[in-house]
Amino acid sequence: MLSKAQNKYIRSLALQKNRNEHNVFIAEGAKIAGEWLHSTQKIQYITATKEWMAANLSLVAAHPEAEAHIVTQAELETLSIQQTPNQVILAVHRPPALTVSAVDHWCIALDTLQDPGNMGTIIRIADWFGIKYIACSPGCVDVYNPKVVQAAMGGHLRVNIFETDLAAFVRGASMPLIAATLGGESIYSITRPKAGILVIGNESKGITPEIQQLATTRVTIPRVGGAESLNAGVSAGILCALLTQS
Amino acid sequence: MLSKAQNKYIRSLALQKNRNEHNVFIAEGAKIAGEWLHSTQKIQYITATKEWMAANLSLVAAHPEAEAHIVTQAELETLSIQQTPNQVILAVHRPPALTVSAVDHWCIALDTLQDPGNMGTIIRIADWFGIKYIACSPGCVDVYNPKVVQAAMGGHLRVNIFETDLAAFVRGASMPLIAATLGGESIYSITRPKAGILVIGNESKGITPEIQQLATTRVTIPRVGGAESLNAGVSAGILCALLTQS
Repeated sequence: MLSKAQNKYIRSLALQKNRNEHNVFIAEGAKIAGEWLHSTQKIQYITATKEWMAANLSLVAAHPEAEAHIVTQAELETLSIQQTPNQVILAVHRPPALTVSAVDHWCIALDTLQDPGNMGTIIRIADWFGIKYIACSPGCVDVYNPKVVQAAMGGHLRVNIFETDLAAFVRGASMPLIAATLGGESIYSITRPKAGILVIGNESKGITPEIQQLATTRVTIPRVGGAESLNAGVSAGILCALLTQS
Repeated sequence: MLSKAQNKYIRSLALQKNRNEHNVFIAEGAKIAGEWLHSTQKIQYITATKEWMAANLSLVAAHPEAEAHIVTQAELETLSIQQTPNQVILAVHRPPALTVSAVDHWCIALDTLQDPGNMGTIIRIADWFGIKYIACSPGCVDVYNPKVVQAAMGGHLRVNIFETDLAAFVRGASMPLIAATLGGESIYSITRPKAGILVIGNESKGITPEIQQLATTRVTIPRVGGAESLNAGVSAGILCALLTQS
């Protein structure tokens, strides 16, 4: 059981200012918690149901630095951002911020991406396609937002995600810059570079003009039907599948 | 302003049993409400802020069958499933259920798809790629769930979505059946049919064995990195982009 103060503390991590103050974030659910517990990342709290604890004793033992608490389903619900909380919630120490000045491989650059579901989905996509880097402009949603952690499914552990001044980063990288826009060249017909930076823009405003001007190629997924747009996560998935195809 | 009973009624449509009883669903937000108001679909309630009403008088006038109510932001919040409710919420009469016994074009078949965000995303993908049909097994999430309507961005109006016994439907259709699975052939290397049925399975259990056995081709998006899987909506987007590429 958690004390009132511990419960309040863990719940407070739903807000970015508290995550920043404590350098700790939340990872929820058996699958995602498992990814972090299998890593060398330092864990602060493991709060889980009796059943989960009993089934995962060795995983808990592997993290002597963590305070482990058995909680009731009702208590888990008070901590959870999910409608149906799932067995275990961790408070995890955030890895140190990464600085990457140059990339030598495919990189996704996110220009003011706002939606945590899209951010998490794109981290998961990078993780699937073996894309090693994600560069985020300062205006992007926090990559340790609980919904991002949820949707990324452990991708944080395998993809180098860093915040940077995108324009300066892009100017410094001697790589093709591929901008996902409406009205660009068809992604089916461009000559694919061996590596490059794929820029995905804000959900409603797209890519900022400064970054657009730096683009080597502007690409579009051709539309056949009536939808006004594709979701940013889905677009990123399609472009990564086509660009990294070998 | 809405009466207490009207407020309660609209909120009740968050639940499928109430949507089924009244044959009415919720469409929320300026963009999505706009899609439904521009259609010939019968609207039951238009509840919106003063500002939205003032800016959309002709759209409201085009629906004399609808009861229009100006509501405060606070009242809108009581009706909304969104964290930040967006100007207007409609209660829309549900179109009659569609029966489709045969398809002559690309069709997406959904086998027990559970997540409303994935369902809505896949409707939006079909709408983008001009895929005219989505066949849902009886175990799928309700396509008029508010989160589905939200994520589909009006796709319901342009894609024929119907519930059917998938195995019988597939047996009846003389079309290639392409099953999205782990461990199938690479989507990059298969011979693409001109049309067919693409099956997407349940988020955790995949495609039911009965449907898998009917597959002409089992396809996979090759993995390079460490992620365990791709999100169902993203997978569907990638497969549709590659299968319908002309």
